[in-house]
Amino acid sequence: MRNIRMTISYEGTAYYGFQTQPKGNTVQDVLEEAIRVLSGEEVSITASGRTDAGVHARAQAINFRTASPIPVERWALALNSRLPDDIIVLQADEVPLDFHASYHAKRKTYRYGIDTSKFGDVFERKHRLHIPLPLRLEEMRRAIAHLKGTHDFTSFASTRSTKSSHVRTILDARIESGEGKLDIFLTGDGFLYNMVRIIVGTLLWVGEGKLTAEDVKRILKARKRAEAGPTAMAHGLTLWEVQYDD
Amino acid sequence: MRNIRMTISYEGTAYYGFQTQPKGNTVQDVLEEAIRVLSGEEVSITASGRTDAGVHARAQAINFRTASPIPVERWALALNSRLPDDIIVLQADEVPLDFHASYHAKRKTYRYGIDTSKFGDVFERKHRLHIPLPLRLEEMRRAIAHLKGTHDFTSFASTRSTKSSHVRTILDARIESGEGKLDIFLTGDGFLYNMVRIIVGTLLWVGEGKLTAEDVKRILKARKRAEAGPTAMAHGLTLWEVQYDD
Repeated sequence: MRNIRMTISYEGTAYYGFQTQPKGNTVQDVLEEAIRVLSGEEVSITASGRTDAGVHARAQAINFRTASPIPVERWALALNSRLPDDIIVLQADEVPLDFHASYHAKRKTYRYGIDTSKFGDVFERKHRLHIPLPLRLEEMRRAIAHLKGTHDFTSFASTRSTKSSHVRTILDARIESGEGKLDIFLTGDGFLYNMVRIIVGTLLWVGEGKLTAEDVKRILKARKRAEAGPTAMAHGLTLWEVQYDD
Repeated sequence: MRNIRMTISYEGTAYYGFQTQPKGNTVQDVLEEAIRVLSGEEVSITASGRTDAGVHARAQAINFRTASPIPVERWALALNSRLPDDIIVLQADEVPLDFHASYHAKRKTYRYGIDTSKFGDVFERKHRLHIPLPLRLEEMRRAIAHLKGTHDFTSFASTRSTKSSHVRTILDARIESGEGKLDIFLTGDGFLYNMVRIIVGTLLWVGEGKLTAEDVKRILKARKRAEAGPTAMAHGLTLWEVQYDD
């Protein structure tokens, strides 16, 4: 038995999220089926974390155990030839048997993409939220700075969160701006359910003048979901990177 | 009667090209139908040039005559609310009655996008040709330089070209490279049928070592389509910009 870790990339548009669920049509279902066809095995994939319906991944990390004799360097090409074109295996490597893609993830980075052009960029419409309004970028940058560090993020977690602690550490938070585009990058030791999307929805209210950067500081301290802004739409969110200690 | 010019952007993946044809489902059909629903008029759109099935446009130029009283500054928003999300009107302005989007186009720029990463970027798969091979970039740059200027481009035109002259001027030709990506930009006073795609197919043979830059000079002089490389796939091609004198 071996433990294989893969880095995978997917456009989430067509899927009901990463994790297997009764309605079917998830990234996990499609990957497990491709592995079954390739190796004849019914494997169970563990991801660094689930992604919601419509959310994308530039580099999601998964692992699974296999008794297949297929050499690890052959897995990526062999699976890619069996996967639909919106899911790609970028890399595969063998890891110790106790490696777990979720428990051992040390840092995760998400990107939330915003298209600020007047009518939207047709080529980015599935990967960026279109907000054709002037946004107060400097105020948004002051706001996001308040979120860095270790805090209780209850205000920025879905009320459906089942975690016993809402304390998380945001290691890096920045906004990059280009012509007609804004990219919000958040790196942390872990994120609560809907946390990135609620942070973005709140930052957009700051950008639109409905909140100030000081308000975001206050919202964080309030530890009440109702104080924060709305949950930004799924399609702007991309799981950018997952880092491990090895 | 007024003459309206529009800049439009589309992802060509779902269409049988720009121009109306018997099979239907073209960008022109969809635009003319949206205009009919908006204004009640049966207009006939003229584009700067047709684009083939699967080819995209970042900024295509079109014009049409209308008796509609709708103010020109309202057309873009009004049409965008009626168009499918893979076609966007970026701008509309009124032009003299004798303006013709094709005859009066002075310069056109195309981009051909190539993805050189090992397994391809899932988010660019519909807009870039995936060539997971090392390409000889410097030799490709030497080759493309031979195409600048005024030449008879018969070697790089489809044998189905119906133009009486194959002399065209390439004003600018360059290759930009980024991580896992190559962008080939060609600007000219006009392009023959399949010309950009045949140039790209030939440049890729140079990149792969099947031809040298000197061979491209020879192919150009031969004025025989059979001497050049293959026609590169449609989905990597994007009509980037159309320029007029005004």
